[in-house]
Amino acid sequence: MTGQYWWYAKMTSTHFDPVILTPNPQQRRRILPILDAALDAVDPQVAVQQVVVCKDGQLSVGDRVYDLNAFRRIHVFGIGKAALPMTSALCGLLCDRVPQGIVLTKIGHTAGAQDLPPSIAVVEAGHPVPTEAGAAASQKIAAQAAQAAHDDLVFCLVSGGGSALLTYPAAGLSLADLQVTTEALLRCGATIDQINTLRKHLEQLKGGQLARLAAPATLVTLVLSDVVGSPLDVIASGPAVPDSSTWADAWRVVERHSLQTTLPRPVIERLQAGLAGELPDTPKADDPIFATGQVMVVADNALAAEAAAEAARRGGFDAQVLTTFAEGEAREVARLAVALGREVATHSRPATPPACLILGGETTVTLKGRGMGGRNQELALAAALQLQDIPHGDRIVVVSLATDGSDGPTNAAGGLVDAGTVARGVTAGLSAADHLAANDAYPFLLATNDLLLTGPTQTNVNDLIFIFVY
Amino acid sequence: MTGQYWWYAKMTSTHFDPVILTPNPQQRRRILPILDAALDAVDPQVAVQQVVVCKDGQLSVGDRVYDLNAFRRIHVFGIGKAALPMTSALCGLLCDRVPQGIVLTKIGHTAGAQDLPPSIAVVEAGHPVPTEAGAAASQKIAAQAAQAAHDDLVFCLVSGGGSALLTYPAAGLSLADLQVTTEALLRCGATIDQINTLRKHLEQLKGGQLARLAAPATLVTLVLSDVVGSPLDVIASGPAVPDSSTWADAWRVVERHSLQTTLPRPVIERLQAGLAGELPDTPKADDPIFATGQVMVVADNALAAEAAAEAARRGGFDAQVLTTFAEGEAREVARLAVALGREVATHSRPATPPACLILGGETTVTLKGRGMGGRNQELALAAALQLQDIPHGDRIVVVSLATDGSDGPTNAAGGLVDAGTVARGVTAGLSAADHLAANDAYPFLLATNDLLLTGPTQTNVNDLIFIFVY
Repeated sequence: MTGQYWWYAKMTSTHFDPVILTPNPQQRRRILPILDAALDAVDPQVAVQQVVVCKDGQLSVGDRVYDLNAFRRIHVFGIGKAALPMTSALCGLLCDRVPQGIVLTKIGHTAGAQDLPPSIAVVEAGHPVPTEAGAAASQKIAAQAAQAAHDDLVFCLVSGGGSALLTYPAAGLSLADLQVTTEALLRCGATIDQINTLRKHLEQLKGGQLARLAAPATLVTLVLSDVVGSPLDVIASGPAVPDSSTWADAWRVVERHSLQTTLPRPVIERLQAGLAGELPDTPKADDPIFATGQVMVVADNALAAEAAAEAARRGGFDAQVLTTFAEGEAREVARLAVALGREVATHSRPATPPACLILGGETTVTLKGRGMGGRNQELALAAALQLQDIPHGDRIVVVSLATDGSDGPTNAAGGLVDAGTVARGVTAGLSAADHLAANDAYPFLLATNDLLLTGPTQTNVNDLIFIFVY
Repeated sequence: MTGQYWWYAKMTSTHFDPVILTPNPQQRRRILPILDAALDAVDPQVAVQQVVVCKDGQLSVGDRVYDLNAFRRIHVFGIGKAALPMTSALCGLLCDRVPQGIVLTKIGHTAGAQDLPPSIAVVEAGHPVPTEAGAAASQKIAAQAAQAAHDDLVFCLVSGGGSALLTYPAAGLSLADLQVTTEALLRCGATIDQINTLRKHLEQLKGGQLARLAAPATLVTLVLSDVVGSPLDVIASGPAVPDSSTWADAWRVVERHSLQTTLPRPVIERLQAGLAGELPDTPKADDPIFATGQVMVVADNALAAEAAAEAARRGGFDAQVLTTFAEGEAREVARLAVALGREVATHSRPATPPACLILGGETTVTLKGRGMGGRNQELALAAALQLQDIPHGDRIVVVSLATDGSDGPTNAAGGLVDAGTVARGVTAGLSAADHLAANDAYPFLLATNDLLLTGPTQTNVNDLIFIFVY
């Protein structure tokens, strides 16, 4: 017990509840700092501070430099779940210039609001279903952007959740019209691309329209990406980047799903007016408003994966990032993760033990049961079932982590499993196979002390899957 | 047209029908030699010749040496779909000693039989359902093995299909009893492990029992592995290796599926007699019969993958084998294959373009439609659908190849797809999504000239998936 206590005492993880150290504390103590490093690298404040530097009135953003003295006013629009820490970090990096602006974030994501200058309004709004509070704040953002002059500097700080939060219906449409439209699209199986194409043509800010409002001011957009592959026109519906979809595309979505009579009358009328050329389209890539701006991804899945790999190397692991585009059914990705681990254990490739392979991305779960869990917990449980059966399974540890700290509708960030996980469940009277079949990973991993618990991390760059091989 | 003709004329692939060169001939001409190299390395004759060398009466098998002059007789039992070429190769490597024996292979797998010495009988039997011809030949193998003396050398050459071919019911049981048992197990969803546990306890050769019959002769077993991970007790049901399953395990399978009254009476009686200790169990790892023998895998998926990687390197690709244990639903593995390709295209890891990533293993298909295809064709078609949509998709080529040349119930070995595959289907009036939904990859890939056609390759080391990135 003394030994175990010692590990607890030396526990230095900044993010993880030490309950995860109950089984195999030595092994896990070596793993947690690697996960910590990943989360630290994509902390919204850290991410902004890595990219923005101010000295003697000269503001560097990536490889661009802005002379702050040349700007009369500085505006900041923080939009998304990480809006507050991103805005807070930026305000501290402006060489004592005080910006004015709005932080529009999800209810409850306002920790640290008291540190913002009073010229920044903080608005909490609903997510994922847009609310009137969000619409009102979006309207204010539009008004302030429209007032920005050629000698103003506008920052747009975008993160996940921004699409629902930044909802400003086009003239003549109500929030209810948008909701009915989205629900109708979901019901008939429309893709997220199709839904976004319609949204961009039924609202006033999405699809580059915030950039059009802000012109001719200088617009700097910093993005914390919660979408696999970081497509800029998808993250928060791309308020500050060109939109490739057209009125014709939008109408095609309506026709494709035969929604001509289902959608609200004002929606149909607007789309037909747009199709007839009576309304301007969203700004395209060749629009001069995009000639002067700057869009920069300050944190994404690749940044987290690379930080983890570096930390793993410092910890003595032969570490490799294999992909940051992983998608697919969670339990299937688990099988391939274990297959990669078996190869390392058997043939020492593509890395030599002790090794750490990293897959970034975001899996999905096709629900068949009614249990409690999330994609990362399900992936971990599926991997645990494989590990108990295969040669060298006892040399492999699989971790699946939601970087926002919230995997599915649970308070866990994911799971960390080994070849003993299934047996620990048996000891607790639980069947891993039954729990997996019921999409019920949470209570199982809770009982086996294999749940990763972080609380909200304030960031979100999707998920990371680790395969450790000893 | 001259250019295209030139590529055709220079086509040197030894295995693939040049129709695959119709789209993108230059690109594909660079790929086919890599696939050729994989198939060549696991050719049964080549594989045996790589491992067995005879010189001046000294026979080397891997790192062991046998003085052929010390043996009175040499026996050869070739069992499986590759039995004939394996036996043929061995007969040419015995320093003019002429062995006696039996080749037991699948109907139609007897090409080259005329080159065998007349002392080798060739028997063609049914597969995958055991037939009386196979049972009769199995009985002859048992009899010859039982006659082998301490100064005899016995070769057992095992390959895929051996389990069904080598079927010799235990005393008191009929072939029909075994068939009824297998069907009952399959009907109630028994795993392949459970089925094999019963088979080993209801037959006379599986589960190390051929080795027991051959003792005290020296037994050399060469294995061409068609099972992912090459578990020696699973390939052809492990006639020459220790069996870890017991009478108690066998009875547990019956109880687990409540088959006490469903299975034939003689089967139940035998299992109960075994459980009561009235019958010997299959030989275990500590049995002295395994002290002198040798078991060697002469070809497996890893050998094919490594040969492909070497050929790819010679062809200028940065090549890496990522796993030889890939399993899972074909279309899900396709997603991860494409995700790996995107990482190479975007971040040049884990390899730098031009790159070739290799995944070995065997996927499965959960049939939902009634179309024509196989796991490799389905994987290729699913990958093609991804490639047309993603950034850098036009820099990625995905290949999925069944090394036996027969993917599912088709005459194709798999598919080779690129970002143009889906569009070529549209030109031919076919929808890739519809064909994938109907498990109907064959006609689609046939129309797009993306089918890999080899004819039977005489070998089988599962499948290879290639991700080429330019």
